[in-house]
Amino acid sequence: VKARTPRPVLDDPVRSDSRGSERSAEAIISTVLRVIVRLGGTTGVDGIGIASAGLVNGSTGTVVRATNLVGFDQPVPLLELVRRRLEDAPDGLRLALGNDVNALARAEAARGALEGESDALVVALGTGVGGALLLDGRIRMGPRGFAGELGHVVVHPGGRPCGCGGHGHLEAYVGRAALELEARRRHRDGRSTLLVELAGDRRISSSVWDRALGAGDAVALDLRLEAATAVAVAVGQASTLLDLPLVVIGGGFAPVLGQPFRTEVERQLSDIGGAGAPLLRSAALGDRAGAIGAALLVAR
Amino acid sequence: VKARTPRPVLDDPVRSDSRGSERSAEAIISTVLRVIVRLGGTTGVDGIGIASAGLVNGSTGTVVRATNLVGFDQPVPLLELVRRRLEDAPDGLRLALGNDVNALARAEAARGALEGESDALVVALGTGVGGALLLDGRIRMGPRGFAGELGHVVVHPGGRPCGCGGHGHLEAYVGRAALELEARRRHRDGRSTLLVELAGDRRISSSVWDRALGAGDAVALDLRLEAATAVAVAVGQASTLLDLPLVVIGGGFAPVLGQPFRTEVERQLSDIGGAGAPLLRSAALGDRAGAIGAALLVAR
Repeated sequence: VKARTPRPVLDDPVRSDSRGSERSAEAIISTVLRVIVRLGGTTGVDGIGIASAGLVNGSTGTVVRATNLVGFDQPVPLLELVRRRLEDAPDGLRLALGNDVNALARAEAARGALEGESDALVVALGTGVGGALLLDGRIRMGPRGFAGELGHVVVHPGGRPCGCGGHGHLEAYVGRAALELEARRRHRDGRSTLLVELAGDRRISSSVWDRALGAGDAVALDLRLEAATAVAVAVGQASTLLDLPLVVIGGGFAPVLGQPFRTEVERQLSDIGGAGAPLLRSAALGDRAGAIGAALLVAR
Repeated sequence: VKARTPRPVLDDPVRSDSRGSERSAEAIISTVLRVIVRLGGTTGVDGIGIASAGLVNGSTGTVVRATNLVGFDQPVPLLELVRRRLEDAPDGLRLALGNDVNALARAEAARGALEGESDALVVALGTGVGGALLLDGRIRMGPRGFAGELGHVVVHPGGRPCGCGGHGHLEAYVGRAALELEARRRHRDGRSTLLVELAGDRRISSSVWDRALGAGDAVALDLRLEAATAVAVAVGQASTLLDLPLVVIGGGFAPVLGQPFRTEVERQLSDIGGAGAPLLRSAALGDRAGAIGAALLVAR
């Protein structure tokens, strides 16, 4: 990606939505390199920006931990590993690493749903749940670069186990992976559901979700309602604590949950009290927001 | 208070701890004026800073709503009302209004537990529960000035009613007023407790709390444990979302809950996951932090 003209050509291959869970760190690095080659290599390129799910330390170029990516349960010095395998890279090639939802927010702020805004929460619904904060016109990074980990805030103390080992986290109620686990658990417990009956042993795809929700499947509707409650709690907490008048919802799973989900979140937020409910808005840039934001990390 | 040499002489008369609930807006304004007179009036004074509980709009000088102060359930243009009654005020006298816990945080940042820190959450436990955020070295105000309303984040969805009309808010589990209501409710339901037996019809004072907790009173211990859980949830949410490595706990009710409360909060935070548990630290400036912070609002 030429830094001066951010031009993402592929969906971010490290997106948590993209079946990353079947890959190891090495496989992901190989994919990054294949993408670089497919985009024409590094000749004439100023920099390469990479956005990854999970806890990211941008200053060291390390993915500290990414629960939803196999091989990323320990720190992975991603930028260094990529740089070593970049042959013929021009002198001074800049590499930058950031969190995927922070990148999404950066892109939406530059040319999307956050353009001209100064204060907002971004919620990205995918395999997991990510967040980003726009505060006083800047993406909040935090002293360790870990700000925005909305997926791992507690929404139900002592509640459902989360993939990270915690309990009651937002991601356990809203992430696509957690909802699949929960649907299968209810099915095993004797509740009939199209989610499992249509998917069989395969992943519960977006189209299976669409069909189950469209048919009024009780388990699917329950899971969507519980997801809306969890999002309303987490969004309400953040907007109350930070005085945030705006929430942007994005990520690949958001359209699957659809308008009824959003309406329910808005309904539950309406009696939030305090400074009042934040406005909900959909992300504008779609699947490529993360890649655009990654490019912006190295754009001057 | 002379702005150049902040010199608070009385406990902040608008403190939510100070039985403000027996007062009306007019009574509080009269108290503010009595304090000004007792401090020597406005001659030679550069400015007067006032810190109030509740939602405060500093730019208009209005207390938008303060649940724990009678007469403040509607907006009160506090600065204008005070200014009108200041006779012989020097030309150019500056008046400033801020939230009490933001003022406390400002003071602790200038010369207390937050000196030299850049990122922290402040939790103030009193009649209610307040919060303040130090982000990148600055107190977070938010676009409407309402940031820091930690007392009204949801910690138990659908849980105990809060004085503000919401449910499951932190303040309903930790505020002194809410705990008194809850202790009396349990007593009416047949649970014996020293909290009510010692206090009778009077307020459950700090010394009654001390005696009940010291005697191992089951209701008092339960309420303290539930308070610690609620604080751990709220603090964990904020530190996960914002990447906050430090939490400062202050307010008049904190010493009453004491070290066992703090140890329990730390225990529950220890398995928070993510970037790890924040460090807990006690506020350093005591009861006058709010007044010092109010003075700093007008100090150049």
